[in-house]
Amino acid sequence: MAAMQDLLKELVQDAVRREMVKLNKDKQVAFSASLSDAGSMTLGPFKEHTLMILKYVPTNIGDAYNPHTGVFTAPARGAYQFQWYLVGKDSAPSAFLVKNNETTFCAWEKQSGGNGCASQGITLFLEAGDHVFLKLWKDHKVFDNEDHHTTFSGHMLFLM
Amino acid sequence: MAAMQDLLKELVQDAVRREMVKLNKDKQVAFSASLSDAGSMTLGPFKEHTLMILKYVPTNIGDAYNPHTGVFTAPARGAYQFQWYLVGKDSAPSAFLVKNNETTFCAWEKQSGGNGCASQGITLFLEAGDHVFLKLWKDHKVFDNEDHHTTFSGHMLFLM
Amino acid sequence: MAAMQDLLKELVQDAVRREMVKLNKDKQVAFSASLSDAGSMTLGPFKEHTLMILKYVPTNIGDAYNPHTGVFTAPARGAYQFQWYLVGKDSAPSAFLVKNNETTFCAWEKQSGGNGCASQGITLFLEAGDHVFLKLWKDHKVFDNEDHHTTFSGHMLFLM
Repeated sequence: MAAMQDLLKELVQDAVRREMVKLNKDKQVAFSASLSDAGSMTLGPFKEHTLMILKYVPTNIGDAYNPHTGVFTAPARGAYQFQWYLVGKDSAPSAFLVKNNETTFCAWEKQSGGNGCASQGITLFLEAGDHVFLKLWKDHKVFDNEDHHTTFSGHMLFLM
Repeated sequence: MAAMQDLLKELVQDAVRREMVKLNKDKQVAFSASLSDAGSMTLGPFKEHTLMILKYVPTNIGDAYNPHTGVFTAPARGAYQFQWYLVGKDSAPSAFLVKNNETTFCAWEKQSGGNGCASQGITLFLEAGDHVFLKLWKDHKVFDNEDHHTTFSGHMLFLM
Repeated sequence: MAAMQDLLKELVQDAVRREMVKLNKDKQVAFSASLSDAGSMTLGPFKEHTLMILKYVPTNIGDAYNPHTGVFTAPARGAYQFQWYLVGKDSAPSAFLVKNNETTFCAWEKQSGGNGCASQGITLFLEAGDHVFLKLWKDHKVFDNEDHHTTFSGHMLFLM
């Protein structure tokens, strides 16, 4: 009976560990990006809402964010959280998150001068293959430099 | 003995898979809400701190957030993360998060004019049944429209 | 035989549950801190970038954040998410996150007057023992009081 119990313990620990490693691997999706990878820059203003490509990517676990296109592609069905932070230099920063063709939430601040900071965040249910990206609001501009003020982060919360 | 071991292995793998699905299900709690579900609006100012009911709810996995009352009710004991983002139109936005009867952190920005953006976030330990909601600071107001600027998001981090 | 199988099933489920609780414990790392634990205060301005010690700590699951030093120490290899929110009183708030000796992203807002709110967030891969903390930008100051405006939160996303 004791031998039986030991065997059971071993089998359980093995199975749990294997299953958790597998599940954990599927959930390893997280990125953070900043607008500029080459010093001081301003993006905008443009006449149309314009896709933002954030090029400096210190974190990209799972490679779901593409720094060449600015697009995050969900690798699996689940819930995902996103945050974005904007700084405008002598201007009003504004950008919204798009899921495929739908607009979601929008970061915005408008002051008479100075450098405004606006931020926003949302949690979304995504199917595998869904695309998520930021669009700069038309007629607005955002600023970034080597200190990394205008940024975009996201990660999977759980598989579904 | 070999047949016994095979049976045991199967039972273990089954139990692991079932248990993980259950555990994962219990953790599927995440919502995002925006103040207005019907175009442009301003909330406040009021003479007292006032509960904010965010009515537009694009994400409500686990149905823990109630868009009729504005209250999030923890479905299980664990750690939960919340973020809120405010925009004020020609005014200072300010709102704080309440856990049952305790105030926690407060988002606030005060400018002479323009549209300020304030944000805040906190991680809390909650017992099953604990209530979490936002209160608009007295004499302050917040703005929202179909672009979704004033928002509230939350999700479970892990069971405890 | 059927009774034997039921007993076995029960034993297995028990063992699985215990193992999963244990593994889940390693992931229970989350904190939230606010600058002031004693009413109204201003930090800065200083001539050098200066480590911020946030003293009021309503949440510190896993005790990875040290309120005496202001430093978060990663207890295990994995991905971690951090957010920070700043309010400046009649001043421009600015603070950046440091991982060991590397600067990462920076929260910043600069207005001619009033109380600005700036925020920022980042997800980082950390080895066990890596240090993460905030530095107040030189010549800037931040404000906090019993309402908790200037705050710092972080938690583990997943083990790696």
